[in-house]
Amino acid sequence: MTNGSPVKIVLPEVESAVLIEGYPGIGLVGHIAANFLAKELKMEMIGYVESPFIPPMTLILEGKPNPPLRFYGRDNLIVAVADIYLPPTLINEIARELAEYLKRVNAEKVISLGGMGVGLFKEKFEVWGVGGTEEENRELEELGVKILKFGSISGMSGRLLWEASKLGLKSYVLLGETFGDRPDPRAAANVVEVLKKMLNFEVSTEPLIKEAEMIEEQLRKMHEQMEEARRKVEKQYETMYL
Amino acid sequence: MTNGSPVKIVLPEVESAVLIEGYPGIGLVGHIAANFLAKELKMEMIGYVESPFIPPMTLILEGKPNPPLRFYGRDNLIVAVADIYLPPTLINEIARELAEYLKRVNAEKVISLGGMGVGLFKEKFEVWGVGGTEEENRELEELGVKILKFGSISGMSGRLLWEASKLGLKSYVLLGETFGDRPDPRAAANVVEVLKKMLNFEVSTEPLIKEAEMIEEQLRKMHEQMEEARRKVEKQYETMYL
Amino acid sequence: MTNGSPVKIVLPEVESAVLIEGYPGIGLVGHIAANFLAKELKMEMIGYVESPFIPPMTLILEGKPNPPLRFYGRDNLIVAVADIYLPPTLINEIARELAEYLKRVNAEKVISLGGMGVGLFKEKFEVWGVGGTEEENRELEELGVKILKFGSISGMSGRLLWEASKLGLKSYVLLGETFGDRPDPRAAANVVEVLKKMLNFEVSTEPLIKEAEMIEEQLRKMHEQMEEARRKVEKQYETMYL
Amino acid sequence: MTNGSPVKIVLPEVESAVLIEGYPGIGLVGHIAANFLAKELKMEMIGYVESPFIPPMTLILEGKPNPPLRFYGRDNLIVAVADIYLPPTLINEIARELAEYLKRVNAEKVISLGGMGVGLFKEKFEVWGVGGTEEENRELEELGVKILKFGSISGMSGRLLWEASKLGLKSYVLLGETFGDRPDPRAAANVVEVLKKMLNFEVSTEPLIKEAEMIEEQLRKMHEQMEEARRKVEKQYETMYL
Amino acid sequence: MTNGSPVKIVLPEVESAVLIEGYPGIGLVGHIAANFLAKELKMEMIGYVESPFIPPMTLILEGKPNPPLRFYGRDNLIVAVADIYLPPTLINEIARELAEYLKRVNAEKVISLGGMGVGLFKEKFEVWGVGGTEEENRELEELGVKILKFGSISGMSGRLLWEASKLGLKSYVLLGETFGDRPDPRAAANVVEVLKKMLNFEVSTEPLIKEAEMIEEQLRKMHEQMEEARRKVEKQYETMYL
Repeated sequence: MTNGSPVKIVLPEVESAVLIEGYPGIGLVGHIAANFLAKELKMEMIGYVESPFIPPMTLILEGKPNPPLRFYGRDNLIVAVADIYLPPTLINEIARELAEYLKRVNAEKVISLGGMGVGLFKEKFEVWGVGGTEEENRELEELGVKILKFGSISGMSGRLLWEASKLGLKSYVLLGETFGDRPDPRAAANVVEVLKKMLNFEVSTEPLIKEAEMIEEQLRKMHEQMEEARRKVEKQYETMYL
Repeated sequence: MTNGSPVKIVLPEVESAVLIEGYPGIGLVGHIAANFLAKELKMEMIGYVESPFIPPMTLILEGKPNPPLRFYGRDNLIVAVADIYLPPTLINEIARELAEYLKRVNAEKVISLGGMGVGLFKEKFEVWGVGGTEEENRELEELGVKILKFGSISGMSGRLLWEASKLGLKSYVLLGETFGDRPDPRAAANVVEVLKKMLNFEVSTEPLIKEAEMIEEQLRKMHEQMEEARRKVEKQYETMYL
Repeated sequence: MTNGSPVKIVLPEVESAVLIEGYPGIGLVGHIAANFLAKELKMEMIGYVESPFIPPMTLILEGKPNPPLRFYGRDNLIVAVADIYLPPTLINEIARELAEYLKRVNAEKVISLGGMGVGLFKEKFEVWGVGGTEEENRELEELGVKILKFGSISGMSGRLLWEASKLGLKSYVLLGETFGDRPDPRAAANVVEVLKKMLNFEVSTEPLIKEAEMIEEQLRKMHEQMEEARRKVEKQYETMYL
Repeated sequence: MTNGSPVKIVLPEVESAVLIEGYPGIGLVGHIAANFLAKELKMEMIGYVESPFIPPMTLILEGKPNPPLRFYGRDNLIVAVADIYLPPTLINEIARELAEYLKRVNAEKVISLGGMGVGLFKEKFEVWGVGGTEEENRELEELGVKILKFGSISGMSGRLLWEASKLGLKSYVLLGETFGDRPDPRAAANVVEVLKKMLNFEVSTEPLIKEAEMIEEQLRKMHEQMEEARRKVEKQYETMYL
Repeated sequence: MTNGSPVKIVLPEVESAVLIEGYPGIGLVGHIAANFLAKELKMEMIGYVESPFIPPMTLILEGKPNPPLRFYGRDNLIVAVADIYLPPTLINEIARELAEYLKRVNAEKVISLGGMGVGLFKEKFEVWGVGGTEEENRELEELGVKILKFGSISGMSGRLLWEASKLGLKSYVLLGETFGDRPDPRAAANVVEVLKKMLNFEVSTEPLIKEAEMIEEQLRKMHEQMEEARRKVEKQYETMYL
């Protein structure tokens, strides 16, 4: 907790780190993508965020306690995940402390993952992105990412983009298009595909697609049942009043 | 953050600065006018306000991240804009820190822009103004501005007028009359016309008028549709009960 | 801001000051009386209260910006007024800082003005008062003021009476009886009449009486219209159901 | 305000003090009993509690201003009363500061007064009590007080019992049984009767009994009127629907 | 209150302590189990938690005042209980201070007790558990405890597991399955049975089973009465409308 900050980043000094942030947001896109990466790349928990203002909760994963805001690491890759939504002031403090850490270890890249709610279904869900400077935007464009020219990015992703780029770090936000009313592993898969090209690692997003199909199947069934129930009620109404 | 203030003004020392403030308020008059000026005068972002109490949000403009409270500059002109509404205590702290900065750089003029809700439509929407002393009022009157003799000015504009004039800086508030229930680029144009004479620069307010006409056209259509819907419902009622 | 207080009294050292306080309260009696005095006695604004917790608002009076909590002065007379209601903790801090200032300048008298809601109309609305000690009560009684033997006084008036009398200053509260549901310049006039005798100055309270008659006339009209509307609605009801 | 506490106990050093606390609570039993004692024993106000977090209010008693949390004294007897309910954190701070004061002056006894809501009417309303140790309980039992074996005591009484007994002071709580929905001077009288035996002083509780009878008579009348009104409404209903 | 923490753990230095925590949570399982142990093992109150943010309340047990957050002790066994629910930030601070204390005294084991709501009735209610490392999990498994592989643990139990294991202490959480809508002494008995094997002490859980049967009988009666009342109302409805 530098300078009386209510937040402390507990993390070893990972020189030239590449940080991927996936705090929860719309469609849980960043959250799903970041947790998926940590698991598939067999990363270890290497640190966490400490603050009395984080709700008292411990996540049990594979029979082990985990703090709700934690970092996974392997080589110079760090993945930051959170199991809970945080109050705005806490997000600001974490972003600032994290950016300072990243500056200190001469981080190579800072990549925030998230979703962009589009509220409709499309043939192809795109991945949008924006970087701290023109250079990052060009890199993203070469990877087929659509550049976000105007808009606003809330929460940790927006704040970290600003704080990290302010310190001269190469920073990016990747936003997977998503309907917006459900967890969306398919949008997460789209984001991971971009990351694979960006960071040159290999991983199959098949499991995310499977999960997406499962969720979609469940929603389809739920809709069918609701539709049937609606028709029944309508029928009863007609019987009653006509 | 001087003296433990929760706010920090990050801004180069612009000697003899002329500051124009356009934080959001009624009709978004100041907000629209200030952003319009920053764009039309091709100003660069030169600074920002830093505080853990500002909501975590980053505005993307032309593919680049921007903090929600920022300053644009060119020569000795500074424009202060905000994308969000702020809590009262934060406004007070920013106003005080900003006034201290302006005093330190011997600012030439401090001009706050805003709207004055009139709640009716008039042939001609006026621009009202008030300055820190009689001298500023005389200047405003010569430019055709109606002097606000009695009334109250809330938010950043009112507070900055007081803080800056208290430090002996020449300070003004310009308030464009506006209906009050919608964003009003036309009122912003009226305010910009006064500014042009005050600061001797040239810029066409045509784009603001165009935007105003577009908004008015949209509202007209919306009203027509609502009127039509109302008539339909009325008709159904009559059919049902008569 | 002595001892880390969130409040700062900005005021020249007025030796042997007589302070009149008129912060807003029931019937706005103190507020109206104090502002009336400041104006009629042609007093100048000589100071103000500074705090980040005061809402950001500036009052424009005769084309000049004024802080919402301010002091008017002439010779050794100081009038304290406020345009806004304040949170309890802030009232406590201001009362304490103000009492310390008054002690430091050996204030002669500290007089708080306010209203006492009686909820009915009477032939004659009295002025009640209470002082810090028996001596002040005797003085008030000689001026025809009814002494408040038992009761409670909330807000700035009650708190200042306590803080100032605790420091050994001669302190008084004057409360004009008022109906309680409207601004009452007539009650303010009654209070001013007592003040005139107490402080030996001359001023006509005619303007306050005029204002009171205007308000009363407006309320009378409003009541007539409401009564008429009520009768109409009643009539429609009868037509519908009978 | 020792150690940055937001509370300051202003009180002369009363060696071997006996403190009686009667802050407001259920049935106002402690409040009524303590104020009755202060008046009947002709005690003087000798101190008060100071804090910016106490609501700004001044009680006028016999034409004199009083702080809402104050101490009355005569010889080594101190009575602590409050006119207002306090937030929990403030209660904790006051209890702690008060206990420290009492320890410093080697207080002989610390006695908290309060009520115990029983929600029914009984032939005889008892007085319950509990002390800091077995010794105090034995003393109470000898005075005919029923010992509270299991239960909880909220507010100032519970907290002061704990804080004072923790410092090794002889501490007691006396709780007069009360119906619980009204101020109960009769329960207060019961508590005072115990106190008289405990502290060997003489005072007639007749005035409290009188007050209780008055309140009971008023409630009886109110109930009769409500009953009558109920019967009327019932009758109208029957007329309407039958 | 180390380092300005708002919490202070008042507790003698119990070398090689075994701490059992039973703060209130679902089914009050931990609360019931911990209090039962303290009583059956004839433990003494040896400490408490001090903080101005704990609600002002004192529990009377066997005619003696007790602070709401307290510790019972015998030999190296410490039981931590609470009579009230606490705000999240306070839980975090207590967990951290407590973990630091436990580290300082080289605690042997830290065992949190709680419930796991299953929302249905089963032949056999299990006890789930999880430890700070694989080693603790193996120990629990050997005692017949089902290991919680994935899930989350809220409140003091989750937080203390994390804080204690972080400092290298052997830490465990035991969660007794419970329906979740009532206090459940039977689930508490199940948890105590595990503890007996874990810590090698003897105690009969018969009283808890008895208490459970009593609660169940009461609920059964209440349900019968509600069912009967429901049937009556239904009957009236039929009479009215058919």
